[in-house]
Amino acid sequence: MESHSVMEDAFSLGLDFGTNSVRCVIVRTADGAEAGQGIGRYKQGEQGILLDLRDPDLARQHPSDYLESLIDSVHQALENSWDYPGFSPEKIIGIGIDATGSTPLPLDRHTVPLAFQDRFKENFNAMAWLWKDHTSHNEALEITRRAWELIPNRIRDNGGVYSPEWFLAKVFHCLHEDPEVFQAAAGWAEISDWIPGVLTGVNRIENLKRNLCAAGHKALFDPAQNGFPPQDFFDSLDERLLAHGSFLYSEAHPVDRLAGYLTEEWAQKLKLPAGVPVAMGALDGHTGAIGAGVSPGVVGNIFGTSSVLMTVLPGEQAKPEIPGICGVVYSSILPGFWGIEAGQAATGDLFRWWVDDVLNSPDSSQAHFELSKQSERLRPGESGLLALDWNHGNRCLLVDPRLSGLILGQSLKTTAAEIYRALVEATAFGARMILDRFREHGVHCNQVINAGGIPSKNPFLMQVYADITGCSQRLVKSTQTSALGAAICGAVAAGSHRGGYDTIPQAQQAMCSQSEISYVPCKQNSEIYDRLFLHYRNLHDAFGVAGSKVDLFPVMKDLLEIRDSIRKG
Amino acid sequence: MESHSVMEDAFSLGLDFGTNSVRCVIVRTADGAEAGQGIGRYKQGEQGILLDLRDPDLARQHPSDYLESLIDSVHQALENSWDYPGFSPEKIIGIGIDATGSTPLPLDRHTVPLAFQDRFKENFNAMAWLWKDHTSHNEALEITRRAWELIPNRIRDNGGVYSPEWFLAKVFHCLHEDPEVFQAAAGWAEISDWIPGVLTGVNRIENLKRNLCAAGHKALFDPAQNGFPPQDFFDSLDERLLAHGSFLYSEAHPVDRLAGYLTEEWAQKLKLPAGVPVAMGALDGHTGAIGAGVSPGVVGNIFGTSSVLMTVLPGEQAKPEIPGICGVVYSSILPGFWGIEAGQAATGDLFRWWVDDVLNSPDSSQAHFELSKQSERLRPGESGLLALDWNHGNRCLLVDPRLSGLILGQSLKTTAAEIYRALVEATAFGARMILDRFREHGVHCNQVINAGGIPSKNPFLMQVYADITGCSQRLVKSTQTSALGAAICGAVAAGSHRGGYDTIPQAQQAMCSQSEISYVPCKQNSEIYDRLFLHYRNLHDAFGVAGSKVDLFPVMKDLLEIRDSIRKG
Repeated sequence: MESHSVMEDAFSLGLDFGTNSVRCVIVRTADGAEAGQGIGRYKQGEQGILLDLRDPDLARQHPSDYLESLIDSVHQALENSWDYPGFSPEKIIGIGIDATGSTPLPLDRHTVPLAFQDRFKENFNAMAWLWKDHTSHNEALEITRRAWELIPNRIRDNGGVYSPEWFLAKVFHCLHEDPEVFQAAAGWAEISDWIPGVLTGVNRIENLKRNLCAAGHKALFDPAQNGFPPQDFFDSLDERLLAHGSFLYSEAHPVDRLAGYLTEEWAQKLKLPAGVPVAMGALDGHTGAIGAGVSPGVVGNIFGTSSVLMTVLPGEQAKPEIPGICGVVYSSILPGFWGIEAGQAATGDLFRWWVDDVLNSPDSSQAHFELSKQSERLRPGESGLLALDWNHGNRCLLVDPRLSGLILGQSLKTTAAEIYRALVEATAFGARMILDRFREHGVHCNQVINAGGIPSKNPFLMQVYADITGCSQRLVKSTQTSALGAAICGAVAAGSHRGGYDTIPQAQQAMCSQSEISYVPCKQNSEIYDRLFLHYRNLHDAFGVAGSKVDLFPVMKDLLEIRDSIRKG
Repeated sequence: MESHSVMEDAFSLGLDFGTNSVRCVIVRTADGAEAGQGIGRYKQGEQGILLDLRDPDLARQHPSDYLESLIDSVHQALENSWDYPGFSPEKIIGIGIDATGSTPLPLDRHTVPLAFQDRFKENFNAMAWLWKDHTSHNEALEITRRAWELIPNRIRDNGGVYSPEWFLAKVFHCLHEDPEVFQAAAGWAEISDWIPGVLTGVNRIENLKRNLCAAGHKALFDPAQNGFPPQDFFDSLDERLLAHGSFLYSEAHPVDRLAGYLTEEWAQKLKLPAGVPVAMGALDGHTGAIGAGVSPGVVGNIFGTSSVLMTVLPGEQAKPEIPGICGVVYSSILPGFWGIEAGQAATGDLFRWWVDDVLNSPDSSQAHFELSKQSERLRPGESGLLALDWNHGNRCLLVDPRLSGLILGQSLKTTAAEIYRALVEATAFGARMILDRFREHGVHCNQVINAGGIPSKNPFLMQVYADITGCSQRLVKSTQTSALGAAICGAVAAGSHRGGYDTIPQAQQAMCSQSEISYVPCKQNSEIYDRLFLHYRNLHDAFGVAGSKVDLFPVMKDLLEIRDSIRKG
């Protein structure tokens, strides 16, 4: 226990750049105990997102928001940690960073965002292209088509369909939409690479290190195959792409590697000691999985506005091929393991939409609380409703943003709470589609560890997920799982000689913890949900899969029959 | 103009027993001018409807509500008419009555409702079975099946499918559900027959006169074929039916015939002169069509919680066969014409549902006003939404109550007003299905005259109906079209010798009037709606027609394409 007493005095700082804000946590490396946290909300646009009324697909962010909110969040976390036993800023031994993605940002050759130049300061295309931006749907279709012609193995590894939310589709769309920005960019960086670059003083684009999580899952980058796809693939899309191939890079690194050390300038701005090791960045979902304690057999579900479901397989196993999954990348989540990522385009966002945009509730939190309470009293099937969770398209298994929401089964007495519950169930059915696909391809899982505010505040939601997926559901204790995962990476960046750890699993072992409660599937509910799920899958195939001639005539009738039999008890 | 000066002093009283209240109007027979109106709201249950939480299909009414509200409404109308030029109660020369239907009520041999007996006073099955009660869906299926085996021509004339909303299905369900009530009933009467019977002092069940509207459209009764279907049809359903054949009758009469004369007792209760002629009753939709001025080529749309679309063809033409329409009955709407009736199970109810039950608006009228105002600003296709108007099943063309609502095309930004508009459009698409079916079977129509509060308060709704159906839309001036139609029947009951008229068309000529405004289809909107309608029809067939293998994959994609092209301008 000698090392333990040493580590008690060491802390790590994790930064999580989310969709609307950046969260900072300071945790003790010995046990993951949180000394304090801070939040910096982005100020521009609508909750930090720049929108275009004429184009509902567009979602951008201004990079200055990231830097200002970063400073705010670190200052707050330091203040909140001030009286934590044993803490002082000098005891911070490492910094880890995650961010949403794919969220690429065009940069000049000094890694300064084009958006900071006067001529581009109001140009949406010079901003960060937020993960949920869907403007590139045509380019994504074209990339998918060409990839199946020229690089079939690689597109298969990425789930078979290239998403408009991903790096290459966005860069390609910029070439079409705004050639001036495309030409002006000396490089494009994921913000999960740009922020570490800023903090470690990278000022030449060719020196900016790229993280394997984003490269492998979002950019068709494979270190085992010379990185990016070959030239003829890009030329088949558009010869101008490689003529100005600024968006390419040649290396990518896992999260247990160093990005560099905190510069004097940023140490002063953040009130942190200069020279602290900074880990390679990662996608927020991946650090969420790390913070949740993902390991073989355990799925981490990072449940926010959207959901990311991740698991790992030992690296010595053969690479699994799972159609419709966002990606299987070696070392992407845990170095040395196959990182498997899948996602749902809207989960929390779907409930938020219902409460804020449709019901127009004056007090959102109260409304979520009330609707959950009413929903909880309903039995499965009792409302007669069934919904698809596609208001923001379908990320997995269909990888198709050109889909939309669906609610059916309404009577003239259907209530807002019944629809709320149907939306919760729809997201759980969506999760089941993914978990079933995992199982069909040999990726065993019977436990899901959930991270995020929504599952921790909603026992009813967790029970629905258990009943529908057939997997027991647990909760991460930390309220900031992605930031905790980032802090774990920070502790590994420091290394055991400085009071950190040498590997991610070692750090997880010490720093992750889950709540005691486990939500176990209830047989009676699962039986009803199995019946509803057949209809969910039929709707899924009818509206989502070309050429599937599904007979939907029984859907409404069977839903009414289930409803009636349950109401009559 | 001699007769005109006589008639100026004559008035007729119309009573309309609706879903939640009875409306009374007193009109001048010379020109239909309204002297006054009154409303009597039913007091029991939820807005007059008795519900069973365990069975959402059940909807009943207590007959005492009808009588109490009748008295209230007449007293109010008299009070409100008091200072109308030339009016006094003695100048009321005739009474006409309509009611919802099929709304049958079990009676004893003195025509007293079983619900008035102590032993049945809390038994829902002894009450009136409101039109929208769907408890008899299994019996309706059985009747349809047997009818096609044994009386195919007759079921074809009634649209091919027997509805659970209709007379025989309800009586048959009572036999299954509550044999005690079935046995105790000496007869079953539509409330459109029972009320005239009460007012004219009928006290033996065999003397109760039955109206042709309900008999022909709801009970498979055909005067040209010996009235009801033959015995073997009923025996094939259940031999106990005819063993206690109390629900049968042998004659039915059109609305230009007399039911009888107002009794002393009811004259006192209502403060009307005794001995006033009372017309045969009719369904509310049919008197609505009369009040709207229905004639060959003109469709009357009685737009309330549900909608009834009616038109007539000259009686000398061959009987039209129109599958999926509720019925084609000689003399049912206008004596001497083919009466053609179709309906939509929920129109106004659908908007009410959205505002009251889902949005939970504290002020319904204000909310309808606001949502209409916001909806009006949207262009067709702009929301990307498409809905089915089936929250209460589909009355025509599918005649299937075991269907439910559907909304699709939602994004994460879809608003309550966009859904409101989608629901309005869904009902208009439903109307178009019916009007297209009319046209396909030689029933010409290019003008719809709308009656009811909803269309008169909603110019935006009328424009949507014009754009979607391709028919110009006009409005009836009267705010109580069914009650006006009933008053027209009252004027004909009186006859021209007492200051009334000898035929319904003569009375319509003098007493009906429409507002000047005509909503004409806008070509640009109609083109977009034609495209949306294809998808509506595909959804309609996919969910509503057994064995139809419709490809729904293009639906969401095309809706998004339309939405994007319209938003981009």
